[in-house]
Amino acid sequence: MLALINGSPPRLVRDHPKPARPSGEARLRMRVAGICDTDLQLARGYMGYRGVLGHELVARVVEHSDATWLGRRVVADINAGCGQCEDCLARGGHHCPERSVLGILARDGALAEELVVPERCLVGVPDGLADERAAFAEPLAAALHVLDALPEGYAGPTLIFGDGKLGLLIALALRSAGLPVTLVGHHSDKLALVAATGTRTLLEEDAVAARVSAPVVVEATGTRGGLVRALAATEPRGTLVVKTTVAGPVAIDLAPVVIHEIRVVGSRCGDMAKAVDALAAGRVDPTPLIAARYPLSEAEAAFAHASRKGVLKILVEGPDGD
Amino acid sequence: MLALINGSPPRLVRDHPKPARPSGEARLRMRVAGICDTDLQLARGYMGYRGVLGHELVARVVEHSDATWLGRRVVADINAGCGQCEDCLARGGHHCPERSVLGILARDGALAEELVVPERCLVGVPDGLADERAAFAEPLAAALHVLDALPEGYAGPTLIFGDGKLGLLIALALRSAGLPVTLVGHHSDKLALVAATGTRTLLEEDAVAARVSAPVVVEATGTRGGLVRALAATEPRGTLVVKTTVAGPVAIDLAPVVIHEIRVVGSRCGDMAKAVDALAAGRVDPTPLIAARYPLSEAEAAFAHASRKGVLKILVEGPDGD
Repeated sequence: MLALINGSPPRLVRDHPKPARPSGEARLRMRVAGICDTDLQLARGYMGYRGVLGHELVARVVEHSDATWLGRRVVADINAGCGQCEDCLARGGHHCPERSVLGILARDGALAEELVVPERCLVGVPDGLADERAAFAEPLAAALHVLDALPEGYAGPTLIFGDGKLGLLIALALRSAGLPVTLVGHHSDKLALVAATGTRTLLEEDAVAARVSAPVVVEATGTRGGLVRALAATEPRGTLVVKTTVAGPVAIDLAPVVIHEIRVVGSRCGDMAKAVDALAAGRVDPTPLIAARYPLSEAEAAFAHASRKGVLKILVEGPDGD
Repeated sequence: MLALINGSPPRLVRDHPKPARPSGEARLRMRVAGICDTDLQLARGYMGYRGVLGHELVARVVEHSDATWLGRRVVADINAGCGQCEDCLARGGHHCPERSVLGILARDGALAEELVVPERCLVGVPDGLADERAAFAEPLAAALHVLDALPEGYAGPTLIFGDGKLGLLIALALRSAGLPVTLVGHHSDKLALVAATGTRTLLEEDAVAARVSAPVVVEATGTRGGLVRALAATEPRGTLVVKTTVAGPVAIDLAPVVIHEIRVVGSRCGDMAKAVDALAAGRVDPTPLIAARYPLSEAEAAFAHASRKGVLKILVEGPDGD
C-alpha cells in the first residue's frame, strides 16, 4: 500500500506491507490526514522516529471486534497506552511509560492507505461533521487541553504567543470557552483568520512596545525567543502554559519565575471526544486554517508544501475519502 | 548606631544614623538576626542593593501607634507593600509592584541596632518561644510556603534536592505537615540533622544511581545542575517547586516539561504567622541548624563565617538580646 515513511525528507513508498491487526486493535482506511509541525520536526530527526508519519486523521473502520463499529468514521487518540497501568486506568494512558504514539513513537501513523489503532482509542465522528473539520480533532484537543492547565474557574484575559497552526487553534479553542483572548503574532493575514471570533490580535512588535501582560499566557511559537517573551509577559502569580517543544536546551533566567511565583505548565495532548463535540456543535470552525489538499499519492509534495515557512494546514486525502 | 552595610564584603559602620520613623511604621530594637544565602548573594551584587543587610529577625517594639504593641517581641513580614493595590489588599502585598523588601530592596534591614518596619508587617512572638527559634520564622515561612504550591490535598512522596539551610528547613516544614519526605544532598552530617523527624535521606550519587523520582520535587540547591536533576526526577504530571534563584540564565531542555506535562512553580516568601505557630507549637525545631552566634559588634566576622562553604545558620545578637 501507499505510505509516507519518515526521513529527511520523508518518502512515499508504494509497496509498504499492510499492517497486521493485533488483538484489541481496529483496522482503519484513511480518509483525511493532516500534517502538523511535529511531523516536520520528526523529519528533522526528533524522537528518532522511523515509521509511517501522520497522527491527525479521519478514517473508516473496516475491522473491529465489535461489529457495531464497522463502517463508522472515526478519529483516534494518538496515545496507545498499555491499558493496564495506573495512568491508563485512571487517566487514559497519555503518560503510560509503555505507550506507543501514532506516527510518532513505535507505531505506524496515518499517512498510509490503512492503519491499525487500539479499539479503545477510537472516537466516532457524528454524521453531520465533515471530514475536513474532523481532521482537526487531534490538534484541537491539544488546544482545548490548555484549559486544563488554567487555575480552577479562570475566566480572565489570556495572551497567546504564536500565530502558527497551533496558536490559531488555541485562540479558537479558548474563545469557544468564552475567555477574552489576545493573540500575538508576526503575520497580519494569519491573525485576521481568528478576528471573526472576537479574538484581539496584535503584531509582536506592538505587543512588546505596549508591554502587554496577562495572568495567563500561552507559548505556542516553538521558538527560544517566543518562550522568553511569553515568560516576561506573565504577571506575578500567573500561569505560563508551554505548548510547543523547542528542540534542545533553552537558556532561561528562572529568577523571575521564583520572584514572581509563576507557574510554568507543560501541556500536550487533550481529550479527543471534547474536540469532536466542539467541532460538531460548530463552537470551533477550523476550516480557515486549511491551506491545501493533496491526494495520498502526492504525499511527498504535500509534505514539501507543509514544510514551507508560514504555510498553515495541509490535508492529505486517502483511499476512503469522498 | 551599629549597622552592617552591604558591599563586597559588607562592612560594619559604627555611626550609621538611626532610621526616621515614617507614619504607619514601628521602631524596633534588634534582638537576633539570621544571615541567609540571599544575603551572601546580595553581597555579590544581586539586586544591586546598597543598604543595611538582614531580613530574618526577632526584635522588640519600642515605638508603635498602638501602645499595646510596645515592649512586645515580634518578627516581621519582609515584604512592605504600598497597602493600597489589589495585591496588598487581597494577598498581603508579596507581589505589590511598589513594595520594598526588608534588607533586600529599598528598605534598610535588621543587622543594625534599630530598624523601622510597617506596623502591618509585624507578627507577635508568644512568650514561650525563644528568640533563637523565632529567628527562623522568615525562612521557615518560605519553607512552609512550598505546601501552597502543591496540588490541592497532596499527601504523597516529596523529594527535596539540596541539604543547605533552606533544603533542611523545607524537609522540616513538609514533615511537620505529615508528608513523606526524601532529602537528597551531598553531606551526611547535614542530612543527619533531619533524620530524627522521619525524613528519608539520600546522598546525591545514590539518588542518581537509583533514579529516584516523585510526583512532587523541590529544588533548593540554587545550582544549575541541581535544577536539571530536580526536573529529571519529577514524574509525569508532577510538580517541581523552584525555591532558589540561580543567578543568570540556565540552559534547560523544556521538551520534557511539555511531553510529561510537568508544572514548574516558583515559590518565594510565605506566611509569617503560620511559621510562628509551627515554631511555638514545637512542630518544627530549627535549632539543630544553628552553627554559631556573634554579637552585632562582630557582624563582619559573622558574615565571613556564614560565607564559608557548608556553614549552616549564623545568628547575630543585637542590643535588645538577652
